[in-house]
Amino acid sequence: MSGAERTERASDTRAAIMDATYRALCEHGYADLTMQAIAEEFEKSKAAIHYHYDTKDELLAAFLEYLLDRFADRLRFEDEPGPEARLDAILDVLLFDIDADADRELHTALLEIRAQAPHRAPFREQLTENHTLIEDLLVDVLEEGIEGGVFENHESRETARLVLATMLGGRVYDLTLEDRDVAADVRDVLESAVIEELRRPEGE
Amino acid sequence: MSGAERTERASDTRAAIMDATYRALCEHGYADLTMQAIAEEFEKSKAAIHYHYDTKDELLAAFLEYLLDRFADRLRFEDEPGPEARLDAILDVLLFDIDADADRELHTALLEIRAQAPHRAPFREQLTENHTLIEDLLVDVLEEGIEGGVFENHESRETARLVLATMLGGRVYDLTLEDRDVAADVRDVLESAVIEELRRPEGE
Repeated sequence: MSGAERTERASDTRAAIMDATYRALCEHGYADLTMQAIAEEFEKSKAAIHYHYDTKDELLAAFLEYLLDRFADRLRFEDEPGPEARLDAILDVLLFDIDADADRELHTALLEIRAQAPHRAPFREQLTENHTLIEDLLVDVLEEGIEGGVFENHESRETARLVLATMLGGRVYDLTLEDRDVAADVRDVLESAVIEELRRPEGE
Repeated sequence: MSGAERTERASDTRAAIMDATYRALCEHGYADLTMQAIAEEFEKSKAAIHYHYDTKDELLAAFLEYLLDRFADRLRFEDEPGPEARLDAILDVLLFDIDADADRELHTALLEIRAQAPHRAPFREQLTENHTLIEDLLVDVLEEGIEGGVFENHESRETARLVLATMLGGRVYDLTLEDRDVAADVRDVLESAVIEELRRPEGE
C-alpha cells in the first residue's frame, strides 16, 4: 500500500467512525454514549476506534468538527437567487428544520455536548470554530444584501450575533420546554422584529 | 411536637437540602453531583435527604422549583421607578449578572440540568413553569409601559419570548464559546435593535 493510499484509508476510517458516532449519539444520547455503542454502529472493534481516538472526549471534539463540515455544506446555498433568499434558507436550516425527528435527536445530543463545554476546553474551541464559520456565512449574506441595496445599512456582525443567539435560545426552548409555541413565536418575532427591519423597502 | 411544628420543621429541612444542593452543584457541577456530595454540604446524612427525595432526579426537579422562587424574588423590582427601569433591571439579572463567578457556576450547572430535560419530563415541566413565570413578569412590565405611553404598542408576549430566547442564547454562548465578545455583542444589539425600538420618543 502506498503512503497516499494509507492516508486515504485512514481518512475513510475516520469518516466511518464519525458516521457511527452520529448514529450512536442520535440513538443513545450523550449520557449513554460509550465507545462500545459507537463500535457497534461502526461494525468494527472498539480497538479500531481507540487507534484513532484515545478518549471519548477526543472523539467528540473531532465529531463537532465533522458536524461543522456537514453543517457548513448545508448552509452555503450558492444556488439561491440573491441574499434575501439565502438568508431565509440559512435561518430555515438553523432553527426550523428542528421538527424533523433526526434533527431533533441530533440537536438534543448537541445540547448535551454543549453543556459539557464549560468544563472541556477542546469542546469550547471547536464550538467557537463552528460558531465563527456560521457567523461569517451570515455576515457575508448580510453584507452582500447591503451592497446590493436589498438590506438597510447596519452592523452586520452584531446583527449576525443577535440572530444566532436568538436561534440558539429558540432551539434550546424547543427541546426543553413543554410548550413548543414558545419556539414558534421566537421564529415569528425574529422575522418580524429583526429580519424585516433589515429589508429595504423596494424602490426607495 | 404539634402537627404545625412538624410541617414547619419538614419545610426547614427541605430548604436546607435545597441550599446544600445549590452549593454542591456550584462546586461539583451536574455530572459529579451525587446524593453523597449534597449530604456533605447538608451536614446531615444521605438518609435524611432520601427521606424527602427518592431519587436525584426528583431532588433536582425540586431544586429547579426552588431556583424559580429565588429567581422570581430577584426579578420583581417593585421599587424601580417605572417600567423602563424595571425592564433594564430584569435584563441585567437575566443575562448580565453572569460575570459574577457564583452566577457563572450556577448557570453552568443549570445548562447541564437543562440538557437533560429532553429526556426527563419532570425537568421540562419545571423549566416550563420557570419560563412562564419570567415571561409573565416581562409581559407585565411591557404592558405597563404601553399603557403608560413609554413603550410603543406591540405584541408584548411575542416580544418577551424573543427577548428571553436571545438572552438564553447569549448566556449559552457566554458559557460555551472561547470568545466572550459574542455574548457582549448580543447584549448590545438586543438593546439597540429590539429594546430601543420599543421605547416611544419623548413628547410624541
